[in-house]
Parts: sequence; structure tokens; C-alpha cells
Amino acid sequence: MIFWQQIMTETALANLQNLYRIFTVPEAPESTLGAVDQAISENVADFLQKHIVALEQSLEEIENDFSVSKIPEEPSFVSEYADFLKQKLVAQSVHTAAPGFVGHMTSALPYFMLPLSRIMTALNQNLVKVETSKAFTPMERQVLAMLHHLIYRRDDNFYAQWIHDSQHALGAFCSGGTIANTTALWVARNQLCGPNGSFAGIAKEGLFKALQHLRCSGLAILVSRRAHYSLGKAVDLLGIGRDNLILVDTDVDSRIDMQSLKSEYTKLRKNDLCPLALVGIAGTTETGHVDPLDKLADFAAEVGCHFHVDAAWGGPTLFSETHRYLLKGAERADSLTIDAHKQLYVPMGAGMVLFKDPHALSAIEHHANYILRHGSKDLGSHTLEGSRPGMAMLVHAGLSIIGRKGYELLIDLGIEKARQFANAVNAHPNFELITAPELNILTYRYNPAWLQEKMVQLDREQLQTINQLLNLITQEVQKRQREAGKTFVSRTRLRSSGYPDEQISVFRAVLANPLTTEAILAAVLEEQCAIVKQTEVQNLIEKIKHIVA
Amino acid sequence: MIFWQQIMTETALANLQNLYRIFTVPEAPESTLGAVDQAISENVADFLQKHIVALEQSLEEIENDFSVSKIPEEPSFVSEYADFLKQKLVAQSVHTAAPGFVGHMTSALPYFMLPLSRIMTALNQNLVKVETSKAFTPMERQVLAMLHHLIYRRDDNFYAQWIHDSQHALGAFCSGGTIANTTALWVARNQLCGPNGSFAGIAKEGLFKALQHLRCSGLAILVSRRAHYSLGKAVDLLGIGRDNLILVDTDVDSRIDMQSLKSEYTKLRKNDLCPLALVGIAGTTETGHVDPLDKLADFAAEVGCHFHVDAAWGGPTLFSETHRYLLKGAERADSLTIDAHKQLYVPMGAGMVLFKDPHALSAIEHHANYILRHGSKDLGSHTLEGSRPGMAMLVHAGLSIIGRKGYELLIDLGIEKARQFANAVNAHPNFELITAPELNILTYRYNPAWLQEKMVQLDREQLQTINQLLNLITQEVQKRQREAGKTFVSRTRLRSSGYPDEQISVFRAVLANPLTTEAILAAVLEEQCAIVKQTEVQNLIEKIKHIVA
Repeated sequence: MIFWQQIMTETALANLQNLYRIFTVPEAPESTLGAVDQAISENVADFLQKHIVALEQSLEEIENDFSVSKIPEEPSFVSEYADFLKQKLVAQSVHTAAPGFVGHMTSALPYFMLPLSRIMTALNQNLVKVETSKAFTPMERQVLAMLHHLIYRRDDNFYAQWIHDSQHALGAFCSGGTIANTTALWVARNQLCGPNGSFAGIAKEGLFKALQHLRCSGLAILVSRRAHYSLGKAVDLLGIGRDNLILVDTDVDSRIDMQSLKSEYTKLRKNDLCPLALVGIAGTTETGHVDPLDKLADFAAEVGCHFHVDAAWGGPTLFSETHRYLLKGAERADSLTIDAHKQLYVPMGAGMVLFKDPHALSAIEHHANYILRHGSKDLGSHTLEGSRPGMAMLVHAGLSIIGRKGYELLIDLGIEKARQFANAVNAHPNFELITAPELNILTYRYNPAWLQEKMVQLDREQLQTINQLLNLITQEVQKRQREAGKTFVSRTRLRSSGYPDEQISVFRAVLANPLTTEAILAAVLEEQCAIVKQTEVQNLIEKIKHIVA
Repeated sequence: MIFWQQIMTETALANLQNLYRIFTVPEAPESTLGAVDQAISENVADFLQKHIVALEQSLEEIENDFSVSKIPEEPSFVSEYADFLKQKLVAQSVHTAAPGFVGHMTSALPYFMLPLSRIMTALNQNLVKVETSKAFTPMERQVLAMLHHLIYRRDDNFYAQWIHDSQHALGAFCSGGTIANTTALWVARNQLCGPNGSFAGIAKEGLFKALQHLRCSGLAILVSRRAHYSLGKAVDLLGIGRDNLILVDTDVDSRIDMQSLKSEYTKLRKNDLCPLALVGIAGTTETGHVDPLDKLADFAAEVGCHFHVDAAWGGPTLFSETHRYLLKGAERADSLTIDAHKQLYVPMGAGMVLFKDPHALSAIEHHANYILRHGSKDLGSHTLEGSRPGMAMLVHAGLSIIGRKGYELLIDLGIEKARQFANAVNAHPNFELITAPELNILTYRYNPAWLQEKMVQLDREQLQTINQLLNLITQEVQKRQREAGKTFVSRTRLRSSGYPDEQISVFRAVLANPLTTEAILAAVLEEQCAIVKQTEVQNLIEKIKHIVA
């Protein structure tokens, strides 16, 4: 008999025994949860297809199922909860893996990710320190080295020296691109404002004294207008301020304009700001364009500031011998962000930042008595996050099972498919391609041929009026398509070469799911045409006709 | 035929077909991975017991299995990889769920967490926006409301108004306590330095101008010396500087000393620093002590600064009617951190920060064109992280299935078990209790009764010499015990009421695993006594005998 049984009442003892069951007795296969589990392991696509309902329920209705704010007093049966879950949560989820849902950056997952995730969860390792992760620490270090090699291609001696070095790390594994970008800029800031003479460094003395020491009134980060919003969060968090995230104009192809960059740089120096980092984007979130990284690297070298590349999306293009050239210059980046839950096809919650110099992360190194002791190989001394799961295992599995050539094939297919879809949009009488794909993302909108013809004759004011109506159509079609739940594209607002003077609303298609076929893409366009025929959208078209008549 | 098949060579086509298999064909139950998966789902404890080897392999040896830095060119079979994984990763993991491993903050998981994790992974939702999470967003909002209610106990009207309000959030879900603490201090910083007259606020203008506006030369955060190291990272990240994290002395019971706090406060004001936040700890990482939160709340109110409570560990004590009083004052915190992967028994990677005021998170609100549009219910506009997995589902499941009373039982049992273990340590002739448990953590060391008796007669210098030798014994025993792989306690260095003048090395036991029994704890002590009998440790004891002779 265990000792606390001596001090408990009978009811409490019964509760205790129920509690034990929860920790020790596995779900029977015939239980609801067991059955769901089995159905998923046998055929996840089929399970999702059957259980994610196509009929839209409004968010307000769904909220009713999640409106109680008190934690239930009494325990409940797992099977009851599993029923609730199936009907109210699973059924009302988004089918992110569906091949017709080409608006997300989330794709289908390789099958092996599911059983491997279960192993990861069951092991419940904590990567913050070797004591709670053991082999997971060398494995994560290997994953970081593999990605480092993909980018920087250093020789075997380099990796033999650094891969398992206890004082250093080639990068930081984290929950996603935002933390990765933040870590990169944190390192850049702390290196720029490192210890110097009587100044003990920004990590110790803070930003105010660092700027007094540098004799300037602020730090600035330069990046194109297409920057991911995480950079705004990062400069806020780091005390730099959003005003000092200098958004540089782009050329007509959404790439940073080097001339504008140089004049912004001159301006900020005049304004007593010190350039902290130059950020290049390898695959913008909205259109998938890649900045001229080589030119950016030249400029960063010229002015002597940290060069970071946000390759959260486009990084895996480096797998492709055919398209790798698009990222030329990435190997000169001081730091580079890559998201594993995007084009490495790993489940949500895995990102990385790699550093060219193995000493870079020392700028944010930290220790503690109970863990992360000096000289230990604990990865936690070089990460922004503390306790972390063993997600690196899923990246390790992807790299090992799919291999470089497998990822290359996925990348090449996505880019090819995007080009084909762009051709299909161009060839279709009712659609207008807004941004052609450089990688595997493109934007377009509903704009019938007859209207496109008329629009070239309109003056600027009339054009704006038409575009505003077209924007409403894009928004309405996208919303209805999403609600119908059969296919899905996302939408955004952007300037483009065709419409440089104003932001227009566009559909955004991301072609990363290997199961998406030409037929499915044709169906996406067909569904959009069908939605346009609905009364509310037709009313908008009538307005347009009235104006251009 | 899908369209890109027209453009491919036969080899490429064969590769493509293999790739399709990876995305569409589930693992057969008789495959290696299928068999591992099944074994885990049938009896995880048994699987872990069988596959996590007790025989220590050195980290250097393990590193050899993870030393290749190049991504393999060719794909490999899932079954081959699964074999590798079983032998080289799983076998060399840490058995965090074992009831004899009482040194971690990671415990056994309720069984239902495993199949639910698989559902979560298969759905692969992204909580950054409703478009990629749908019902997961209201569900996460409900989880935040439930935890908010656990702490702040506001009435139904309050939650009816705020739980699903699109402009606000009651807290932020995140990957863990570090991000939670950082988010809290970020909010506090941005509130203190918010827009005011011509000053547009720190989020826009940065810390330098904020301090000029506030007319001070730095911000300071006050917390006891027992603070988690994540606070050091947070002040570095936020530009405040580690020097301005004022570590206040504690009383003999590891709780912040109010007198020292007040004098530190006076000092920092003299030094032209502006107090940003006062942090109370509810369950220190090393000894599980709780600061006098009520007094801290009084003082924070008096001086008018943000009051944050780091309850990453101790927060769930609020479930217990018996022990809830220990956290009295937590309900006055402006923000409170709680880790779900600790005492909510959720797998690694889940933390939360709750805010008393639903408007607080507006201080870090952000938007973007393609997501997080104004007025949307997207949770991503109020979180530090961007893309995030649906971990809130596992918290929702825990709260629903275990219920308030179930968690209460777990908390009460842990505290009771820690007291019993402390009694056992006290009663044992060879051990010395260093810190008694207030919650479910205690520290102790090997120090035989005969030596304890002698030590009271020694002068300070002799005492230090003995303590240094005892420290070596503690370190050696802990290391050997960990390497033997049967039972595990962690170790740390701390000052205590018995040894206020120097840091001593201690064993640290965390009693959170409900499967840990009195017999297992007795075995932990027995194993330590057996290790002491080994020659290397005996040599140290001989040295001590020689000194005190």
C-alpha cells in the first residue's frame, strides 16, 4: 500500500484510483479516443476528409461551444470528452492538408510524421539541457549542422570542430520563424553593442547606455516593405522601436530597390541612427519573391553591418540544384532563418536560425546554477526559449528519409506547378495575374478580359474606383470560397508592377502541397467563377459595368 | 495523369512516385515504425521501460551517431530510419516519466495525451489566425479564460464580455514560461512607456527616446535572488540590461526579504532608474518556495509599478482548496505566468501568461495585411510568437477530463509526498535536509549524523572546508546515480537557513509524478547510500574524517 492511502478518506481514495487510471491505463482500441486514434493512423487523409465538415458554421456559433470560463469541478470520462472533441473541435477545424487548400503555408505532412510525433510526445524530452534530453541534444546539434551545411557549405573539418562543441552552437532551434528572426536580431544587437573598454555591453548595461557609448540616438534595421510582420515585433521587443525598422521601397517585382536602400541608409546616418542590420528576404510571405541577396551582402559588407536573411519560406530552395541560384548570396548571410514547419514538411512549431560564425551566439549566452552550467553541452544556454520539445527529431527524420534529392523534387515541383497555374490564370478569360511566381507563390484576381481591356483606357481616378470595386469582389469571393469549405486561397493587399500606385486586393496561392494537381487548381478557378455568379457579387459587377459603360 | 508528369524523365517519375507514397501511404502496422507506434499506444510505460536503456553511454559516444553534417543525398526507407531511431535515439533518451526520476519538472503524462497529440498533429492547425485554426481559436480563448478565472475569479459577466472579444485577449498562449515571462515584461515596459503627448510610445520610438521622455537613465525590475534565469534573458532581450534586474536578498526560507526590497527600491530611485516591474515567484525553480505575494502586491501598489508573478511551477497550487492560501495575493498580479507542461501534465511546449486587465495586451498589439487584420479574432495579434501549434487543445483536455478536483488531488498528493520524503530524509542517519518543502520540492544532501554533530563545533573556516568536500560528494553521487539510470535527483547550489554564508551543493527532488511511491523514494536514498560506499566517494569521506578527527 502506498503511504498516502493511510491518510485519505474512502471517497478521496476512489478519486485517487481514478486518477491512477488516467496515468496508467491506456485507451482501449474500442473506446472513442482509441477508435479516432486508430482511424488517423490507418488513413489520416480519409479521417480528415470525413470529419472536417465542409458546411460553414459561423465563428460565433462555434464560440458557444467554448464559452464556459470555469474549469469543471468534476473529472469527466475520456470517451465523453473524445466525442465532444470530434464533433465540436475536429469537425470545425481547417483542413490544412487538403490539396485544394492552396492559400496556407501549411501543407500535407509525410505520413511518418504522425507515428514519429507520438514517439516524441511519449519520450517528452526537454531540450533545454542534456540531463533531460540526452541523445536528443547531439541529434539537434546535428540537425543544426546539416542546415548550416545546406546554407554555408563549410568543409568537414569545420563541422568536426563545431558540431558538438560545448561552448558554441551553429544555430538555435525554436518554435518558429518569429523567434528565429528575433534571435538573429538579438545577436546582431548584442554584437554591435558588445563589451568595449569600460562599457560592459548591452546585455549587462542595457540599450540606453549602449547608445550613449555608441554616441547615436537609435539603432536601425533596413528591410524591404515586404518584410514579414515578425520583424516589427522584434524591433519593438528589442527596444529599437518600429520607427527604426526602415521599410525600403521595392522594384516592380517586390524585390528591395538597391537605390532606395542606399538613400535610406544615407538618411538614417544623417538622423543620428546607427545601422544594426540589413535584412534580405528569401521568399516574401505575400508573393514569394527573393531579394537580390548578393547585392545586399555587398552593401552590408560595405557599410559593415550584420546581414540577416529571412528565408523562413524560401530557405529550402537551397535543396534544388535548379533553383538554388535564386538564393545566391545567402551563403554570405551572418544569420539565416528557416522554418521547418513550412517547406521541410514538419508539423507546426519548428523553426531555426543558423549563424555563419559559430561564435555569434555567445552574444546572448546565459547560464544558471541548476542548469546550463558552464562547459555543459546544454543547448539551452544559446536559445531564447527555455524548456523545448524534441521537434528537431522530426526535422532529422525528414532530412534522413526524404533526403536532399527528395526535398529538391518537392521544391522543383512546387515552382513548376506555380508556373503552370500562372499560365492557367493568364489563359483564363476571367482572371488577371498580379504577381508571377518566382518561387511557388503567385497572386491573381478576378478581372474579366472585357474589363481589363476597358481599364487601360481609364484615367487614374476612374481606375481607382474600379479597383475598389474589384477589391470588394476579391474579398467577397475569397470569403465565400473559404466558407464553402471545398477549396481555399488566401488574400492580401499589395502594390504590383501593374498597379504601382495603390494597394489592391488579390488572391494568394501557395503551391507547396505535393498532392495538389492541375485538375484541383482548375477547380479552384471554376469555383471562383461560380461564386462570381452569385447575386451579391453580380451586383458589384453591375456597378462596374455602369461606370465603364 | 497529373500535369508535371509530362515534363519528367522516367527516373524522376519513379522518384516522384516514391515521394507520393511518403505523403499518402500510411505505415503498415507490421512495419518497424508501425510496430513502435502500436507498442506505445498499447502500453507506453512498458515501451519506455524496455527501450530506454539503463546502461550509461557517454555523451561523446552518442555524438558519434549524430556526427554527419551533410544532409543525405538519397531518400531512405522509413523502416530503416525507424530502426536507427529505436537504437540510437529512443534507447539513449531520458526516462522523464519514470516514477523514480524525481529530479525533473517533467512527470508522467496522462495516457489520453498521446492519442490527443496525434489528433493535434494530424490537424496541424496554426493558431496565429482563425483562417488556419477555426474552432481552435475559440478553444484557446476558452482555455485562457479558464486559467484567468482560476487566478482572478472574476464573475460571469466579465468573461461573457471578454472571452471572445476580437480586440482583446485575456492572455497569451506560448511555447513555455520563458516566452510567457518575456511577454509579461514586454507588456509592462510598453505600458510604462506608452504614448504620451508628443511621444508616440516605446513600441514606435524605441527605448532610448522612451527613457529621455521618462527622464531617467534606465528601467529596473525587482525580483528575489531565486528568480528563474529566464528573467535575465528577458531583460537582456528587452534592452533593459542584466544590471537592472535587481536581485533582492531572501529570508532564510528563500522568500524575498521585504526590508531588502524596500532598500533596493530606494537605491534604484537614487540611481536615476525607473522601476518597471516587481516580480514575485510562486514556486522557485530550485526549492519551490513562494514569495509573500500579498506583501509584494501592497508594495507594487504603493510605488505604482507592474506586479508580475512567475507561477510557472506553482500556479496549479490554485487548484487546491487546502494549499491555495500559499499563493494569496496572486489574484492582485497584473500578469501571471503558468506552465502547462509542468503541473498541468501536458507534453513539452505549452505555457501561458494571463493578464488581470483585458486591455493589457493592447500594448504589444500588431497587425499585418495578409493576416491579423483589425477586427479579426486572430490570436496572433497579441502573441510574441507567430505560427503556433494547437497545444491549447491538450490543456483543454486536461482541464476537462481531470477537472479542478483531479488537479487538486495531484497537487495535494505532491505536497504531502514531499513532506513525507522530508521526514524520511530527516529520520535517515546519513542525510541532511537543506530546504523543507513548501510546495512539492525539497533539497537535501548526504551528511552522516556523526559529521553533522561534529560540524556544529567547527569554526567558519573548517566548516567551509568540510562543505567543499561535501559538495564534491553531492556532485559525485548525483552524477553516478544519473549515469546508473535507475533513479534520478537533480542538483543545484544554494544558500539556506542552515548555511547562510556560502552556497552548498544539494540534491533536489521534485515530487510531481503521481506514480512515485514511498517505496521508490526509499530506494532513491538507498541507492545514494550504496554509491557513497564506492571507493572514489569513500576517499572524500576519509579526507573529511581526517580533518574533523
